[in-house]
Amino acid sequence: MVIDFIADYYNNIEHYPVLSQVKPGYLRHLLPRSAPLAAEPIEEIIKDIETHIIPGITHWQHPAHFAYFPCTASTAGILGELLTAGLNVVGFSWVASPAATELEAIVMDWLGELLNLPKPFLFSGNGGGVIMGTTCEALLATLVAARDRKLAEIGEGEIGIGKLVVYCSDQTHCAFAKAAKIVGIKQGNVRVVPASKTTSFGLCPDELVRAVRSDRDRGLVPLFLCATVGTTPTAAVDPLLPLCRVAREHDIWVHVDAAYAGAACVCPEFRHVIDGVEGADSFSLNAHKWFLTTLDCCCLWVKDPSALRKSLSTNPEYLRNQASDEGGVIDYKDWQVTLSRRFRCLKLWMVLRSNGVANLRNFLRSHVRMAEAFEKLVAEDARFEIVVPRRFSMVCFRMVAGARHDGVANLVNKKLLESINGSGRVFMTHAVAGGIYMLRLAVGATLTEARHVAEAWKVVREQADAMDVEGIVGC
Amino acid sequence: MVIDFIADYYNNIEHYPVLSQVKPGYLRHLLPRSAPLAAEPIEEIIKDIETHIIPGITHWQHPAHFAYFPCTASTAGILGELLTAGLNVVGFSWVASPAATELEAIVMDWLGELLNLPKPFLFSGNGGGVIMGTTCEALLATLVAARDRKLAEIGEGEIGIGKLVVYCSDQTHCAFAKAAKIVGIKQGNVRVVPASKTTSFGLCPDELVRAVRSDRDRGLVPLFLCATVGTTPTAAVDPLLPLCRVAREHDIWVHVDAAYAGAACVCPEFRHVIDGVEGADSFSLNAHKWFLTTLDCCCLWVKDPSALRKSLSTNPEYLRNQASDEGGVIDYKDWQVTLSRRFRCLKLWMVLRSNGVANLRNFLRSHVRMAEAFEKLVAEDARFEIVVPRRFSMVCFRMVAGARHDGVANLVNKKLLESINGSGRVFMTHAVAGGIYMLRLAVGATLTEARHVAEAWKVVREQADAMDVEGIVGC
Ligand SMILES: Cc1ncc(COP(=O)(O)O)c(C=O)c1O
Ligand SMILES: Cc1ncc(COP(=O)(O)O)c(C=O)c1O
Repeated sequence: MVIDFIADYYNNIEHYPVLSQVKPGYLRHLLPRSAPLAAEPIEEIIKDIETHIIPGITHWQHPAHFAYFPCTASTAGILGELLTAGLNVVGFSWVASPAATELEAIVMDWLGELLNLPKPFLFSGNGGGVIMGTTCEALLATLVAARDRKLAEIGEGEIGIGKLVVYCSDQTHCAFAKAAKIVGIKQGNVRVVPASKTTSFGLCPDELVRAVRSDRDRGLVPLFLCATVGTTPTAAVDPLLPLCRVAREHDIWVHVDAAYAGAACVCPEFRHVIDGVEGADSFSLNAHKWFLTTLDCCCLWVKDPSALRKSLSTNPEYLRNQASDEGGVIDYKDWQVTLSRRFRCLKLWMVLRSNGVANLRNFLRSHVRMAEAFEKLVAEDARFEIVVPRRFSMVCFRMVAGARHDGVANLVNKKLLESINGSGRVFMTHAVAGGIYMLRLAVGATLTEARHVAEAWKVVREQADAMDVEGIVGC
Repeated sequence: MVIDFIADYYNNIEHYPVLSQVKPGYLRHLLPRSAPLAAEPIEEIIKDIETHIIPGITHWQHPAHFAYFPCTASTAGILGELLTAGLNVVGFSWVASPAATELEAIVMDWLGELLNLPKPFLFSGNGGGVIMGTTCEALLATLVAARDRKLAEIGEGEIGIGKLVVYCSDQTHCAFAKAAKIVGIKQGNVRVVPASKTTSFGLCPDELVRAVRSDRDRGLVPLFLCATVGTTPTAAVDPLLPLCRVAREHDIWVHVDAAYAGAACVCPEFRHVIDGVEGADSFSLNAHKWFLTTLDCCCLWVKDPSALRKSLSTNPEYLRNQASDEGGVIDYKDWQVTLSRRFRCLKLWMVLRSNGVANLRNFLRSHVRMAEAFEKLVAEDARFEIVVPRRFSMVCFRMVAGARHDGVANLVNKKLLESINGSGRVFMTHAVAGGIYMLRLAVGATLTEARHVAEAWKVVREQADAMDVEGIVGC
């Protein structure tokens, strides 16, 4: 019955407004005040999901969902989750379910090889991969590992942690500053280097050098650089090669956050965007973003797993067992922030096998082509401009017509986005970079076809036509 | 096909050895060296799961799984996970799927009321609940909130964080010390108060007072107490009422970790174990442990959500939206460590509705009764003793016969556990408390019936009969 419900959901999905149109607080008066004392039939629950829950869903799987970055589901991914829930094992240590640990290690080597990650990131090269829930967790784990390694060097004295400095650009995902805060980096020691339009919003290595030198001059200790491949605002690519060179010189841990764009690197023609990753210490991507696994599945590879283990391992008596004591096994609890962990590699394994690498590549390429088509449509309309060159499957654009300066254009585009999303026919979100407010079309939902992208452009044009630009510009 | 596979799995589950009998590294040579280029049929994948994966599974859902604490699946929980994967929404902020946020808030109030949590922990009383993956995350989130509140008081100066002290007992789960380390508490400032057999391994309030006073005398700043209801080694209960009184006096944040035993508090007759919780700041339980939701589902309630938000909120431009700006909605990303979050409340809602509260209570009671029956069997056999009084559904026992002192008894019981688990017929784990090595029988798997517990006792007796106790004792 639930499988049928899901099948129907996907059959009907195009008829729902992409962005939920409910008002805050809509649900509380629709549901009982407390949990029922007696059991209720599943039919009843499914009916409630249809009438009460679905209207409050913003449909991430809708083919016209172009907001944020994609979060892709697929049959293999959903079935993988179902199996994970069915077996429901807790793979914190090898003995708690050997298959969960061993399959993860194998699949992470498979995917690492597909991405053409340098050997030192793979188990076969004495590094290794681990699956976490989200990039936030990957950033936390690597930051803590780097922090403790550095503190062991400079002394854990009371001022030690207060001296550590971390680096990113103003395009880096907010998850990084949050992770830095959590691990106790002083807020004034999160160095946010501005990226500008001249570098297509990539982090400029010279700026990094300047920031690092200035910190060292003040007696601070550079710790960590978060470089991004495919930034959230504009899908910009930080240049790994020169950045890692700078980092190496100052003994800075480099993490490469390729949450969205990393998946594209399984296609040889896109792999160059992570050239230079051999100089980094860790690399992560979210397979749930653009690699069909369903939420959550963040893949992290590190060159030095012992750094993670030194910071994150625990060995209480109640978890002791012969296999761990003998040391020939991986206990993934020691590689991550959390102890309990779901059997997530099952879905990644199933996605790889039931699609095959060739289809996966074509799937990604088809999205890139759709974005190219959209980019072309935008470029042909004089009222619009492409703000930064398209990267991967994302187009950043805005309306320019009539606006005499950016402040006004920003207002126009904000209104435009509101009316686009208010239509319920597509859902896009926005970014601001270099002071410019832009609309983002991120192609990536599993069901998206060329016609949906064409339709999205139609909605944009219609809403632009209907807008009282003069009215906004005039005020 | 996958549903059938899972149904078959549960039909056959009693025939599998509970503890996987594979050797480290068993899987690598069974699978191809790399991901397939071409798509493979699902039949093929399922066949591989049967032949290669299942033998490497330690069956947490086996009715004779008595190890660790239970991690319960159920039809409603599994179907909830399936729906979550099918809809695959990312509920970081209200607008990203209003239903995901609103249902979570409602269900957390439902469950909070069932537990008879004091009103200030509920949304209806200006507190509120949030679902995370694991207790580790709940500890991290509350520790950071407490840390930042305290640092705002005493000044964020470089030595601020180095002065903070956190408290727990030597029975507290290792997740706490790990979380403390992650948020930058100095390792020397994690105060582990020994708990002894005289207090049934509960944390003694007088000992806490002594520790706090001594820290204050040395100029340190008490920050956080992790009290446990149902400790991992022996299911001991820290006395909340007097502990919270001490904490209040010294302005210490109290978190109550009821990961396993919290679920029992939906039964009025067990609710007294959290008497005094009104003096705590936060309370958590793992619904995936003993409340049928499948991994992962940690429920956390706090009295002061703004403390979480002050530490954990992010507001980057690309996530800004009207509903959040207007402030009338919950954005759960600001309540937790991670940004992206699965629609976990769906399964909790389904478990509550499709079982009904009355059945859920009876389910928990039946496990407690089974543990009581086992306790009785142990007590009747002169070779064995109950080490600490049974709590909830867990029995801690050991073999005493022939051992002249604990060191020898410990060795005997270690051997005994190895042979019990080696049989494949049951799986138990051990704990050491007060220097005593004991076997733990934790009843809680969804399929466990009285006969499985009786069978477990039979296995214990048989293995004890077969043991060369004299040989071990003699050496
Ligand atoms: C570049 C980048 N990094 C990190 C994240 C955060 O990922 P997660 O939600 O998995 O923590 C995102 C999410 O969109 C992202 O685009
Ligand atoms: C008392 C207690 N606290 C915390 C945990 C850790 O829970 P999690 O794996 O959800 O972090 C456990 C796990 O067994 C536990 O028993």
